[in-house]
Amino acid sequence: MRILVVNVNTTQSITDAIGEQAAAAALPGTEIVPLTPAFGAESVEGNYESYLAAVAVMETVLAHPEPFDAVIQAGYGEHGREGLQELLDVPVVDITEAAASTAQFLGRRYSVVTTLDRTVPLIEERLEVAGLRARCASVRASGLAVLDLEQDEAAAVDAIAEQAALAVTEDRAEVICLGCGGMAGLAERVVKRTGVPVVDGVSAAVTIAESLVRLGLSTSKVRTYAPPRPKQIANWPPRVR
Amino acid sequence: MRILVVNVNTTQSITDAIGEQAAAAALPGTEIVPLTPAFGAESVEGNYESYLAAVAVMETVLAHPEPFDAVIQAGYGEHGREGLQELLDVPVVDITEAAASTAQFLGRRYSVVTTLDRTVPLIEERLEVAGLRARCASVRASGLAVLDLEQDEAAAVDAIAEQAALAVTEDRAEVICLGCGGMAGLAERVVKRTGVPVVDGVSAAVTIAESLVRLGLSTSKVRTYAPPRPKQIANWPPRVR
Amino acid sequence: MRILVVNVNTTQSITDAIGEQAAAAALPGTEIVPLTPAFGAESVEGNYESYLAAVAVMETVLAHPEPFDAVIQAGYGEHGREGLQELLDVPVVDITEAAASTAQFLGRRYSVVTTLDRTVPLIEERLEVAGLRARCASVRASGLAVLDLEQDEAAAVDAIAEQAALAVTEDRAEVICLGCGGMAGLAERVVKRTGVPVVDGVSAAVTIAESLVRLGLSTSKVRTYAPPRPKQIANWPPRVR
Amino acid sequence: MRILVVNVNTTQSITDAIGEQAAAAALPGTEIVPLTPAFGAESVEGNYESYLAAVAVMETVLAHPEPFDAVIQAGYGEHGREGLQELLDVPVVDITEAAASTAQFLGRRYSVVTTLDRTVPLIEERLEVAGLRARCASVRASGLAVLDLEQDEAAAVDAIAEQAALAVTEDRAEVICLGCGGMAGLAERVVKRTGVPVVDGVSAAVTIAESLVRLGLSTSKVRTYAPPRPKQIANWPPRVR
Amino acid sequence: MRILVVNVNTTQSITDAIGEQAAAAALPGTEIVPLTPAFGAESVEGNYESYLAAVAVMETVLAHPEPFDAVIQAGYGEHGREGLQELLDVPVVDITEAAASTAQFLGRRYSVVTTLDRTVPLIEERLEVAGLRARCASVRASGLAVLDLEQDEAAAVDAIAEQAALAVTEDRAEVICLGCGGMAGLAERVVKRTGVPVVDGVSAAVTIAESLVRLGLSTSKVRTYAPPRPKQIANWPPRVR
Amino acid sequence: MRILVVNVNTTQSITDAIGEQAAAAALPGTEIVPLTPAFGAESVEGNYESYLAAVAVMETVLAHPEPFDAVIQAGYGEHGREGLQELLDVPVVDITEAAASTAQFLGRRYSVVTTLDRTVPLIEERLEVAGLRARCASVRASGLAVLDLEQDEAAAVDAIAEQAALAVTEDRAEVICLGCGGMAGLAERVVKRTGVPVVDGVSAAVTIAESLVRLGLSTSKVRTYAPPRPKQIANWPPRVR
Repeated sequence: MRILVVNVNTTQSITDAIGEQAAAAALPGTEIVPLTPAFGAESVEGNYESYLAAVAVMETVLAHPEPFDAVIQAGYGEHGREGLQELLDVPVVDITEAAASTAQFLGRRYSVVTTLDRTVPLIEERLEVAGLRARCASVRASGLAVLDLEQDEAAAVDAIAEQAALAVTEDRAEVICLGCGGMAGLAERVVKRTGVPVVDGVSAAVTIAESLVRLGLSTSKVRTYAPPRPKQIANWPPRVR
Repeated sequence: MRILVVNVNTTQSITDAIGEQAAAAALPGTEIVPLTPAFGAESVEGNYESYLAAVAVMETVLAHPEPFDAVIQAGYGEHGREGLQELLDVPVVDITEAAASTAQFLGRRYSVVTTLDRTVPLIEERLEVAGLRARCASVRASGLAVLDLEQDEAAAVDAIAEQAALAVTEDRAEVICLGCGGMAGLAERVVKRTGVPVVDGVSAAVTIAESLVRLGLSTSKVRTYAPPRPKQIANWPPRVR
Repeated sequence: MRILVVNVNTTQSITDAIGEQAAAAALPGTEIVPLTPAFGAESVEGNYESYLAAVAVMETVLAHPEPFDAVIQAGYGEHGREGLQELLDVPVVDITEAAASTAQFLGRRYSVVTTLDRTVPLIEERLEVAGLRARCASVRASGLAVLDLEQDEAAAVDAIAEQAALAVTEDRAEVICLGCGGMAGLAERVVKRTGVPVVDGVSAAVTIAESLVRLGLSTSKVRTYAPPRPKQIANWPPRVR
Repeated sequence: MRILVVNVNTTQSITDAIGEQAAAAALPGTEIVPLTPAFGAESVEGNYESYLAAVAVMETVLAHPEPFDAVIQAGYGEHGREGLQELLDVPVVDITEAAASTAQFLGRRYSVVTTLDRTVPLIEERLEVAGLRARCASVRASGLAVLDLEQDEAAAVDAIAEQAALAVTEDRAEVICLGCGGMAGLAERVVKRTGVPVVDGVSAAVTIAESLVRLGLSTSKVRTYAPPRPKQIANWPPRVR
Repeated sequence: MRILVVNVNTTQSITDAIGEQAAAAALPGTEIVPLTPAFGAESVEGNYESYLAAVAVMETVLAHPEPFDAVIQAGYGEHGREGLQELLDVPVVDITEAAASTAQFLGRRYSVVTTLDRTVPLIEERLEVAGLRARCASVRASGLAVLDLEQDEAAAVDAIAEQAALAVTEDRAEVICLGCGGMAGLAERVVKRTGVPVVDGVSAAVTIAESLVRLGLSTSKVRTYAPPRPKQIANWPPRVR
Repeated sequence: MRILVVNVNTTQSITDAIGEQAAAAALPGTEIVPLTPAFGAESVEGNYESYLAAVAVMETVLAHPEPFDAVIQAGYGEHGREGLQELLDVPVVDITEAAASTAQFLGRRYSVVTTLDRTVPLIEERLEVAGLRARCASVRASGLAVLDLEQDEAAAVDAIAEQAALAVTEDRAEVICLGCGGMAGLAERVVKRTGVPVVDGVSAAVTIAESLVRLGLSTSKVRTYAPPRPKQIANWPPRVR
């Protein structure tokens, strides 16, 4: 099967890292196709950028020339998953929800450790809307910007592990979710530092997407995610690239 | 003061109707500036169209050449208000939230009567995120598409009044919110048919925006709605119109 | 239009301060009529006093000889608003709810800073009943009694600003509501100390009451706030003053 | 021990019925003292009357010349219990809460069957504030006014049993609470008609008050129910009777 | 009346202590029959042991040769109460729920102080399922194992009082529940140390069970707690003792 | 990898059906080992039987002589998963939670269609404790007993499809979960009858267990699911078979 894994920002190196992480988690017969959105911010750390990413991811997937079996939206706490579900017949998996769903099988409460403080509310709201917040102990910020994660991995692991440890002792989390697509690859080192299971959303999303495809399940089209009605869309899509 | 009232779809006649409704509710000294988004669907009835509208509204407001004192997003249950709050220093009021907040001063529970069944979940989720759902008795669909509302107003009033009456008797609502920007102008006739107060979101939003401006209050910039960080945005904005 | 602004305690100087604050927020054509209840405690800081105030406010409004267009109950976290809504055909606005509703347009979470610790539960319960608690980050006590507020305004600002700052950093509030009618007039100074929007309930209530009147909206009479049924009331009202 | 059982309305025959019900439930050594409030409505069926009752009950208890060991407030869904808890050192039990607490030991979900539709919201809010609503399946109105209950007991039992049966089949209740102090004495007949346990609040409150006294437990004075601070109360209490 | 008070662990000295506590709380005419389960762990501090206790308590009660009027399950936060309710026609009272229900009559929020940190989640979940968590301020661990409680009562009181005091000041509890059957007898000393009411679950359960019996109330058999359907049960019960 | 799939009842034909369903969903390299508990009821339809099953499943897994990589508890709405998580180092997946988690990736709200009305509360409570109830539209009973399912599959499909259709139209479900391990194999036929995705818990659990093993994730041992402390367990395990 072929799974599109779509980054939400336009930084190619992050797309590459996400693609590698996804491929490492995939079954032998799964082809991972990493995609960078056709437009948008170099990193997504707020609502304006997140809404732009939502639309860019949708347009990028719609424009993809090859058939595919599932789509993963690889941004943590971002908007847009519902739109993809409307537009597509194949399963759509958001890494925020994939990580939380997986964490819930591993411990009674989980925490998310993300990047900047300003992204905490976005993640909290996405978990709320997804009905996955009852067992969320906390969403904590490491203070690192998305693009900082790549600069100094050791410092990133330190900052994340520090917040993860506080989540376990102060907030009573028993599992940690890495709250940024750009944190792919750091899980093992955070496990060593905290002693609790650490869930990487990209890896979790790959196994969930594969599972849905294997089970022959896809998005219900009966109401919320029915295909858009045919209608005139003015001045869109933009001509980009 | 000058208030931008931004439609979420690209149908000019709906923009006009919203503008008239807003002007009728405004204080003598308030200038209402109705705006149609630079791109997007002729009516917004689902997530894909709503995300597109969110971005279009933001770009349209950002591109507005004149200064203004407040912005009203005149789409019911649509995405995007958070992005506007990040981008602007002036108050931003969403009509979904304006209607619900106003309804809560009028009765113990309120219901929303909207257009198509498929838009019910969007409204429910926006009310949930806005923390305004505890007193929402129900969100009911009239079965009318947005563009149908203009075709036959009498039929529209019938369909809306029927659901409003059921909301009062079955769901124990005491107030009705008209759940579509395109329903501006129908409130009085629904009052006559149901005997309960009916809130039009556009009118409510105008008075709230005016009030915030008069009180010297605007969006807190301390965390969630801090301005976007300076960063590179690829292939954006699109050249439209 | 004429708006009655009813203090909940019997201290005339607080009525005066509330009246001034209300008048400053009102539209040019609005007449503010400040009222002191016909009986009750010099300050309301608990349930016994609050229930007494509820009844005193109702009797005082019922006994008011002039017509009026709206009523504001100017006590924070006090009982009684539902009774006024039953008794009157004009809109009734409670400052606790007015402040919270307004704060929700300004930031994702708000905190209330009130007087004594013992009044915190009353405010929490009123917000709960009003369906306005989902976005309440905390209710914090400054430790000042109501009547202390007038003695030393500088000390009051210090105590309030200290708790407001903690609400922002510890509880993740983005907006502060001044949780006492007697704090009218301190908002600007607390803004300067905290950098976040500060909502004064009296001012907020005035703009909301004016808005409801302008929009032709008033309390739904269909169930909860239907007029009292005609019945015999023994030994009441008391002859006071 | 001596327990004051205070009616919330001023109809002596209802006080008598409540007193008989209480006495029938009490331990041999318990003296039940039924009290009628010094002022207020002949029946309490709304917020205005309920707030008035709250104050009347407090004044009546404060004025009681004999010592006592506990107080029962025998109105369903009425205001005021918190004030009594502040004023007194002995335990205070509200029949709404007594019935719900007791019902929770008997089945997974309970419903309340009360008098008029307009009193449903008051009961719902009191259960919410009391933290006893999670297992409440519904509050249903029989359509009978309080004073109707005494006129035709057979008709009252019919109307109550009909709603109780619907609560069991439609709302999945497993226990019924009789939602009016004036329904004391009807429980047995409703049991026969529905086959589920029926809780009378007055009886339940008596055993709870006795239990608290026997266990040496009373209201915590550490915060919410601390005694009122000493202060001047103007024009109060009224001279009545 | 005769009440079975069933310990959840197989340590006879704890059964004895529970029995003494129950007898001290009981009415003169009540016979308390303390029972030790026929099998299971010497102390219950986790899910495996708790599930085993649930079954052991049920078998022990089923095997009891004498008639009885009510059953108390004297383990804090343990599984099994629902099964007993299915199997028996007489009232069943769990001490976790008895303590919380009683505490709610004494203050606005209560905390539980229990033994080991690992038992906190069990108590939280049982309170959640029982619909008694809305007013629970916190569940705190003293760090003592169940069997430590008997070794050094002074140290136990110290550890419990320390957490109780933190619950009052940090978590805003107004009442403390002793969260372990083995803490029977310590309440008075914790009251002295904290100044707030302290509820012992065993004593509370005795008065509640007595009250239900006196009121002629027992478990509803209409759905959740209907008797098990007749069916074949393989290899059970085990032959023990 | 080797996965134990443990039935909760002692009916071998149901174990066989569950095993076949699991094997059909498994990856080529996965060995499915179906197990029947060593003791317990022929079908589990209530709390007593469910608690017994919880213990029987634990003992059966503990007694399993071969190593294994994951355990699936194949009973819908049953007790016991937490105990297995304590006892084992490998992942444990409950089919109730597996089905709900999977359904949440497919639609906004899901309903469960189960067997008898009396099992509805058990499922609701397990979903509540699992934090998976926010998006549950309803749990509906088909009226069929567990052992009826095998007798007449066509009648079973009819009864299930009827409730599923009502869940979609009345309760606004968009996905259906088959709420009984014994319904394995019916999913496809219910899809045809309802037009919405239907999730079989056993199949879903197999892919989740495989995913956890592939990702190297297992139960957090930091608090709730720490291994039982070493202690004396009297008269246990029973000698069975």
